[in-house]
Formats: sequence, structure tokens, C-alpha cells
Amino acid sequence: MQGTQQPTSPPTTAYTPTDRTVPTRSPDRASYDKELVHAILDEGYVCHLGFVRDGAPVVLPTLYGRVGERLYVHGSTGSRPLRMTGEADPGLAVCLTVTHVDGLVLARSAFHHSINYRSVVVHGIAHQVTDPEEQRTALDTLVDHVVAGRAADSRPANKKELAATAVIRLDLDEVSAKVRTGGVNDEPEDLSLPHWAGVIPVRRAYGSPLADADLAPGTELPDYLTAL
Amino acid sequence: MQGTQQPTSPPTTAYTPTDRTVPTRSPDRASYDKELVHAILDEGYVCHLGFVRDGAPVVLPTLYGRVGERLYVHGSTGSRPLRMTGEADPGLAVCLTVTHVDGLVLARSAFHHSINYRSVVVHGIAHQVTDPEEQRTALDTLVDHVVAGRAADSRPANKKELAATAVIRLDLDEVSAKVRTGGVNDEPEDLSLPHWAGVIPVRRAYGSPLADADLAPGTELPDYLTAL
Repeated sequence: MQGTQQPTSPPTTAYTPTDRTVPTRSPDRASYDKELVHAILDEGYVCHLGFVRDGAPVVLPTLYGRVGERLYVHGSTGSRPLRMTGEADPGLAVCLTVTHVDGLVLARSAFHHSINYRSVVVHGIAHQVTDPEEQRTALDTLVDHVVAGRAADSRPANKKELAATAVIRLDLDEVSAKVRTGGVNDEPEDLSLPHWAGVIPVRRAYGSPLADADLAPGTELPDYLTAL
Repeated sequence: MQGTQQPTSPPTTAYTPTDRTVPTRSPDRASYDKELVHAILDEGYVCHLGFVRDGAPVVLPTLYGRVGERLYVHGSTGSRPLRMTGEADPGLAVCLTVTHVDGLVLARSAFHHSINYRSVVVHGIAHQVTDPEEQRTALDTLVDHVVAGRAADSRPANKKELAATAVIRLDLDEVSAKVRTGGVNDEPEDLSLPHWAGVIPVRRAYGSPLADADLAPGTELPDYLTAL
């Protein structure tokens, strides 16, 4: 109604945009919707983790998993990003990016070629996980991201393994998604050109499971793998 | 023969390892072989480009292509990494990473779960491409990385488009590959556990091409797309 005060608090369904999560390129493709961000993150298991070492950027692929508004990222205690978080743990500034390619967009003009994709970029300070219970939760989450249901169907980590498993956590706070969908955007004057144009869908595909030679007798392929 | 001087120059078939291209984690998986690096790079078209902005890391997905020992990376002139290279062009310190996931390694123990992958990490200083001929070469290379043979079957960029196409170049000099292959590495005492273990192959798959609604009459799907 006219004159009625509108709610001013930000919606809890979206991340608050910041200077570095508003892209300068194609800002119309950006989204801060939590549901969309979660869906993109939950579909993947490999992220690209960026950090700064001696003033220079480093980008490494590694496994990640999500629990609510927290990400867990895997690495051995020997890996560089994790050694920087430690006892004193001031945290490590990171940028974690997850990208899914959904299609090749082949335009009539070289210039308008593109990719349909969904990506999430997370900025923040990562901290080492030291609590054994949280370590175990993190490891289970990483395993379940690779194949849903797998953590419950494997031997849990023992104390020695947990001690050798470095996991960092990164809270979802400064986050954006970017999505391109749809077809080609050729110039009107190019439409009559004889070049084929359109989209080639791209997806992740799984091959037939290759069983380990030493499976215990009678071990069957579980349903959650058949479903892949 | 004994006493004969051995050649001391590094082999031209490998990149020279540096402090930052020797991984602290699983160094046995690292390789500096140029042929392997080229093969991994040539199989992809999306990289994750890392750079430093205001002291913090930024990792963005973008398209790339290779010509010999040089990579070209795409972005509009509005994008952040490219705006940092400019007229004076001192260059931008970047880390460019390409990762292919080849398989899910499902061990009996949560701890030994892994991924079969091939990745390349390139460290260096990126510079903006300003020469129009090199810009055109770069754009063609990016398009041909997405689909081999496509650049020749599209309208070349005109002057206005080249001016709006920012491309950076990054020479392959400080480079390493990292590869994990093979099966599960379970502990001997876990082999009798009743959990299925093995590798699920992962690959990129293409769907049926979705033709643009406005194709010129008589335009057929080209052979290089049927081959996908």
C-alpha cells in the first residue's frame, strides 16, 4: 500500500554483492541467488583454488564439498595452500571457482562464438579445520560430492588418516554465480551466411565401472553407482 | 664412454622445473614433458586464470588456445584481468590452470578416495595482444580450440570486432603437468572389506547439435561437427 514502509533488510535468499563480486564483463549474467549458487556447487567436486604466494597467483585444482554455507577443500598437509594456514592460523585469502560447461555456442561469426556455462566464484579467508569431528564431516562431504551416498559405504577415516588429512573451510559469504544459456547472438547481417550455427550441448558422462581386481568375494556394484 | 663429456644443456623436449613448478604434494605425479603438456592443453578450451587484485587472488574461467609455445587467453576489454594490461603494459602476473577429470577413484576407505586427472599449471607474465594480425591469429586459435576446423568455417572478425576483442598472450616457459592414472590404492588390511572399489571413467560427451532457427536455406551440419 502507498506509504507503507518496505522491508529494508536484504533477503536471506541472496548473497550481498560486493565490489569484487559484481563482474565488469557481462554483469547481466551474474546472480547472487543462494539456491542457484548451491545447485552449481553441488553438481561439482573439482574446484580451482587460487591464492597468493610470494606476491604471485597460484591456481590449483582440488576437491571440495559443501555443508550449508560452508565449503570444505581437500589437500594433504604437504600442499602449499594448506601449509600457509597453521597453528596460529591467520587464515589464507583464497578465491575458489567452480565451472560447468553446458554447451558450445557456434556463431556464424568468429567473434560471437561463446560457451554456455554456469560458474561460481567465492572470495574469502580459508582456515584449517582442526576439530576431529569437523574433519570427519569434511572428509565425508568431499567423498559424497564425488558420488552421493559413497561416504556411508566406505571405511571411515581412522585417527592417523584424519591427522594426515588437511582440510580447509571457506564460508559462503562473498559469492557470485555467472550463467550463460541460450543460443547464438549473431549480427542480423550475418544470418544469411552459409555457415552452420547453433549450440552443441556438453555434459559429463560416466563409463562402465572398472572393478578393482581384489574385490571381496560377492561384492556387488552398489545402486548409487548403477544410477550414474 | 667413460670420461666423455655429457651434454649439459637441458633437453628441448622438457620445461625446466622451478621452485614453484615442483609440487610439494605427490611430486611423483609431476611432469615437465612438452609433448604431454601440449596434449593436455590441446584437449581443452576452458582454463582457470588466476591473478592478484588489491592483494587478493581472483580466479576466473575463460577460453584459451595454444600456438606453439604461446597461449592466448580471451576476454572483453571490460574484464578485470585484461584492463590491468594496457598501453604501458608492464604485464600481469598470472597462473593459468587447465584440468581434465578422467575418473573417480573409489577406494574401500574414505581416506583413499581420489580422482584420476590430467592438469597443467602455467606461471608467467601475461601481455595484451595489440598487433591486429596476432589478434586475428589468437581469435582463430580460440575458436579452433573449441571445435577444430571451426575458424575456417565462420566469418572472420572485422576491424571493429578485433578492437573489441581483448586477448592476452602467455608464453609457455614455467610450466608443469600433473597426472594421476590407475586404480585404487587401498591399505592391504582393507582389501577384505565388503565395499565395492574401483574406477568410474569420466569423459566429456556431446549432445545432438541444436541448429539455430534462422540457418540459411540448405545449410548442412558440417563434417567436423558430425565427428564430435
